[in-house]
Parts: sequence; structure tokens; C-alpha cells
Amino acid sequence: MKFSNKIKRCGLSPIRKFYPYQVACQNRGMKIYRLNIGQPDIKTPEQFFEAVRNFKQPVLSYAPSPGMPETIEKIEEYYRNIGVEIESGDVTITTGGSEAITFSLACILDDGDEILIPEPFYPNYKTFTYTTGAKIVPIPTTPEEGYHYANREKIEKLITSNTRAIMFTNPGNPTGTVLTADERRLLADIAKEHDLWLVADEVYREFTYDGEPLATMATFSDIWDRLIVIDSVSKRFSACGARIGAIVCKNKEFQGELMKLCQARLSVPTIDQLASAALYDVEPSYFEEVNKEYKKRRDTLYAELKKIPGIVCAKPQGAFYMMVKLPVDSAEDFLIWLLTEFDDNGETVMFAPGGGFYQTEGAGVNEVRIAYVLKSEEMVRAIELLGKAIEQYNAIKK
Amino acid sequence: MKFSNKIKRCGLSPIRKFYPYQVACQNRGMKIYRLNIGQPDIKTPEQFFEAVRNFKQPVLSYAPSPGMPETIEKIEEYYRNIGVEIESGDVTITTGGSEAITFSLACILDDGDEILIPEPFYPNYKTFTYTTGAKIVPIPTTPEEGYHYANREKIEKLITSNTRAIMFTNPGNPTGTVLTADERRLLADIAKEHDLWLVADEVYREFTYDGEPLATMATFSDIWDRLIVIDSVSKRFSACGARIGAIVCKNKEFQGELMKLCQARLSVPTIDQLASAALYDVEPSYFEEVNKEYKKRRDTLYAELKKIPGIVCAKPQGAFYMMVKLPVDSAEDFLIWLLTEFDDNGETVMFAPGGGFYQTEGAGVNEVRIAYVLKSEEMVRAIELLGKAIEQYNAIKK
Repeated sequence: MKFSNKIKRCGLSPIRKFYPYQVACQNRGMKIYRLNIGQPDIKTPEQFFEAVRNFKQPVLSYAPSPGMPETIEKIEEYYRNIGVEIESGDVTITTGGSEAITFSLACILDDGDEILIPEPFYPNYKTFTYTTGAKIVPIPTTPEEGYHYANREKIEKLITSNTRAIMFTNPGNPTGTVLTADERRLLADIAKEHDLWLVADEVYREFTYDGEPLATMATFSDIWDRLIVIDSVSKRFSACGARIGAIVCKNKEFQGELMKLCQARLSVPTIDQLASAALYDVEPSYFEEVNKEYKKRRDTLYAELKKIPGIVCAKPQGAFYMMVKLPVDSAEDFLIWLLTEFDDNGETVMFAPGGGFYQTEGAGVNEVRIAYVLKSEEMVRAIELLGKAIEQYNAIKK
Repeated sequence: MKFSNKIKRCGLSPIRKFYPYQVACQNRGMKIYRLNIGQPDIKTPEQFFEAVRNFKQPVLSYAPSPGMPETIEKIEEYYRNIGVEIESGDVTITTGGSEAITFSLACILDDGDEILIPEPFYPNYKTFTYTTGAKIVPIPTTPEEGYHYANREKIEKLITSNTRAIMFTNPGNPTGTVLTADERRLLADIAKEHDLWLVADEVYREFTYDGEPLATMATFSDIWDRLIVIDSVSKRFSACGARIGAIVCKNKEFQGELMKLCQARLSVPTIDQLASAALYDVEPSYFEEVNKEYKKRRDTLYAELKKIPGIVCAKPQGAFYMMVKLPVDSAEDFLIWLLTEFDDNGETVMFAPGGGFYQTEGAGVNEVRIAYVLKSEEMVRAIELLGKAIEQYNAIKK
């Protein structure tokens, strides 16, 4: 049977593709410190479950296609509180941030169009882009420069007549890089000057650790006609399984086109939407505690990594990821070895190989993404294992 | 700003686009008998809500991308019970039947490809197809022939070198037409002979009213390599707001391609999936009662419609829709008039205009889709209103 060219260009998730090795390793009785996946261990606020239990309608019916008014209002209020002028119709609820990006790109990209994305980037951006028929043009960065990409010269030389958009994650996944105010302004300026859409994936907005104020591109009113902000409750409230996201865009024509896709998929899960609205009632102390915990993890991770000879990494300022360059030839081979051969008192460690986060062929082969989703004590042991493993691995391979 | 050509080809839902008229009408204090939307009024089984309330995990985490094992097993068992040999890996959970179709078409259709769909059809098929860049080639039917389409000559003359698939809803939405065993076999044969995919949307499977046994295309083992069955809990268990669907396909290569899309969107809502698994424990008496209710509504609807002069309609055998040809020039104009001018003791009636269910320009303009989602007593009044309105409307227009 014949499959579409578009699906053939897509690949399996580089984060999830080592799952069979993980299972086999666990079946041998090994304990694996899993730093490979962005599933936080933070408790989902009780407000969510309370709202779930309080759902009392006898018929679980479709929600309105743009989202339930209760949920939209909470998100509107959230944006007003961070300094964005929000009007009715600016917020559309989606099935997770994933659908928010899929729908946004479907509205703006055609076959042959190009979208600029700084690499390394969230690997699912590939599938979201390829299914539209468009191409990703990567904005290159280096571990040595802390993966910073907001550089006029670097970006402008990649813009062609086929370029339609710039998309980025801020705070960054997988790099943890946080844009400065000047860098955000620069991206806005470039988009304006070259008449491009700007897709700002800000699902990690709350997760910054060096005193940066809550930031969104949506405070730049001069780019409202071209700005699409991707949002989600998944990371903000540790509610990944709710699959509730949102698109914030003040371009009414865009919202009109988007509504075609929203109506076709009918609606977003009703109970999860209502429960997600309740999440916006958590007190500011929730975020303070969560951020304190992640900051501690980040600091532990960075301090422990610095003890391993030959490692290159920049201290991430946000999200809960870090890209690390390892002194090995291939992070993929090393990971398979970790899951099949390495054993330190019945324990090993797992991360996401870096290659899958790059568009450029061959880039990132000796980098890995570490998600600091484990408690600090566990992280210490995990990085100890990593250090021991690198030493053993290189001794064997030499 | 520039939008994609693909999104420009899509339209708003013809079912939902009269919503502003509906709101204005209700704001004038009118009661509207709403026969325009497929939202059943049947109670969602208590098992669903019980499972929702029993969810006790502290972190609402991502579910596995192919679906939760608990839910997959229940659906596998359901298919075994209706005579389909199901192996592990044949069932993938999706966010509603909508995502099941979107993903299936993305796997098999490219720009310029053609998919055959009998018309009138579920209007969202347009958006699902257009976003892949493919074209819909309608298989024409007539109200006079009860909208039957499984005719070798009719179908074969539409097949070209660009044809990739045949897609149909059985039992039919919007027609209520149910394929006979011979017709199902014929569609399988045509797909085989012309090497086409067969996308069988069987979300209304349980809803047949004339003693037909539960039927699925999946019992034809000779087309397993080309058959994609679309399934959902929405109608089966009156759980539209759960957004839990499934793809059943025994082609392993297809499942492999599909997994790329599933991994990119990460997962389907966790709590809704678990609660949907519980739905498969409802006793057979649930379906008997629901079907008895719908059969009564269908019979009432048909009997009442027959009293209106000039109406053409076939008695539907399944689903809960009926296409009806009205003695008016334009069903859209008539609907607007119903919502703005007509008033019978403060009451009016609403349906979905037929044109949006057709691909062929100008077809279906004097047809409407009636969803028999109201209780019989209410349906009697609704059709009485329709009859009175047609008489008044035609008197004014002449």
C-alpha cells in the first residue's frame, strides 16, 4: 500500500524511540534514573481533581469548538495579569500545546514554504512542520555559546522569499536558554521587517530561575498581527495528561482561519477543560515552591556535571532541560550501551540523545538532553552514574 | 499576513455556522427545537463518571502515545466479541474519531491525490481531506434512491490513477443509510481490485433499527492490509465530550506510520481514556434501551414528515440522522427565515441545511439534515412547526 510522502518524511520521536531498550533493561531488574523525558514529578494541584470530581452533568457533551467560556476567561485573566491587553476572541483552547502548534502551522504553511527554527529544537516540530509540506530551515547555535540564537546577522542570512515564519521555544526546550528582553525585541523586529509570522512557544514561561520577570512576546503590541503564542497547562501546572493548550493571537483573520480546524475536530475534552480552568486559581506560592525545587535541581545538576571531565554545558536559565556535550563519539551508541551493558550496583541512567533535536545532518551526535525531573538527591546519583559510565565506556572503546 | 492555500480551501462547519442566528433568536425569548446537531441527549453511563471520580494518581501524567493498555484491551475485546480477529498493535487510541480520520488521511494522502466519498457526507471530511492537500471526488446519490452509493458502475467510473482511497460512514451521517452485507462486500472488492485504501467510519455501528446484526468491514480478512476502521466512544456511549476515538487497522506498516503522528501529539487525555475503558463494561441492555428509544424517534420523525406535502425522504435504517428534501428553493434562506421571522406561539425549529453535506456545487440546496436527538413528543411538535413553516414560507415567497 502507498503512504503519503509527507508521513514518510516524518520520523519517530527520538525521545521515545529507546523505550524498548528501557523496558528490556528494567526487565533485567535494573534501576534506571530516567532523565530522558519531560514528565515532571510535581503533584498536579488538588484544584484540578476537585473540579473533575465535581463534574455533575448527566450527559458528557461536546464543548464549544473555540473552548469553554469558563476556561477561556481564566486564561484571558492570566494574560491581563502579566500585562497583555486581551480582548474576547484572542484565546482559543486546543487539545494540548501539540494541537496548538499543529493548527497554527496548518494555517500559515504550504508545500515548499520555509520556517526558521533555532536548533537544537523540540523534535516534534519536525512532524508538525512536515505534515504541512513545509521545510524547516535551522538557525544554528553552539553549546559553547550557550545555544543563543537571537542574532540579526545569523537569522537574516537564512531568510528567503519562501520564508513564512520564525518559531522558537522560550524558555527553551531542549536548551533551557531564556531570551533576554533585547533578544525578544530583536526577534519581533526581524519578523516585522521581513513580514514573517512569529510562533512563540511559551509553554515553559513560568520556569525561569535567575529572577527574570514573567515574559511573553505578546507584550509587543506592534507585532500583534503576526504573533501566535502557544500555551498549555501541561508544564505550568504539571497537568500533562489533561491535554489542554491554547493559542493566543490577536490577528482576527488568523482566528477565523483557525476556527475552521477547531470546528472540524469539534471540541476539546470537556472535563479536562473545566478542571484546567480551576488550575488558574492556584496561589502564587505554588509557582514559588515549584520554581524553588527546579532551581535546586538545576543547580545540583550543573554542579555535578561540572565534576565530569570533558563535558561542555551552559547553565540553563529556564524550562527543565539542559543540553550537554559529552566526551563520547555517539550519544546514541553510548545510551544503548548504558541500557544493555553498564551496571553500577544494579543501577544505570538514561537521557535523550541530542541528534534528534537537530535538523542539520550529523549535528548534536555527541550531545544529550537531560531533563531535570528527578529530585536533587536522585540527580546526584544519576550524574555520578553518568560520570562513571563515560569513564568506563571510553576505556572500553579506546 | 499570508495564510496557507490549504486552510483557505477549508470552510466553517455548515452545521455550526447558523449559531449567531440561533443565539439572536433565543435572545428574543423564542424556544427553538434544535434538530441541527448530533449531540445525543442520552445519559452517559454512570461507569464513566465513577471511573473519573476514582482517578487517584497524584500526578496527571502523559499516557503512552498509542493509548493506555487498559483502554486498548477493552476495545480489542469488543472487536473480538463482534467476530474480528484482533492482535496486539491493531488498535490505536485517538483524540476522538476526528483525530482518527485526520491522522489516517495524513498517512495516505498527498497533494493532488483523490479520495472517493459518497455524497452527501459528514462536512468535516472536507477539512480533514483539504489539510492533506488532496481532493474529494464525490460518489453521487439521490434522495429518491435512498442515498445508496455502493454501485460498481457508479464508483468505478470515478476511479483515476490519482485515486488513493474510498471513505464512507456506515451507518451513514447525514443519510442514515445502512450498507447491506452485499454492498459492504462490493466496496471491499472494488478497493481490492483497484488497490485502494478503504476508510470505514463506523462510529454509529450500534445504531441500526431494523434488526441488522452489528457489522464492521473488519470481518473481511482479505482487505486487512487496506482497511482503516474509524471508531469512537462519542455516539456509542453518548460520551462526545470525552474525545476518545480509535483506529483499528491490521496493516502493521500503517500502524508504524501512524505512530509518528501519535508520538508528535504525545498522548490522548489520561482520565478520559481510563473512564472510556470503563464504558465498555456497560451491559448489553444499555444498547437495547438506547436503540429502542432512537427507533421510536425515527419512526415518529418519519411518520410526522410524511404528513407534510412535497417532502421527499427515505426511512433511515441507522445512525440518528435523516436527509429530507423540502419543497423550498433554498434550505439556507428558509432556515434564516425560521430563526428571524417565523413564530408559532413563541416556538420555532432548526435543522442543518443540506448544501454543506455535498461536494458538488449547487447540490442539496433544498435538502436538510434532521438529527433525531429529541424525545418523540418534542419531535412531533418540531415537525409540526416545520410543516406550518413551509406552508407560510411558500405562501409569502409566491
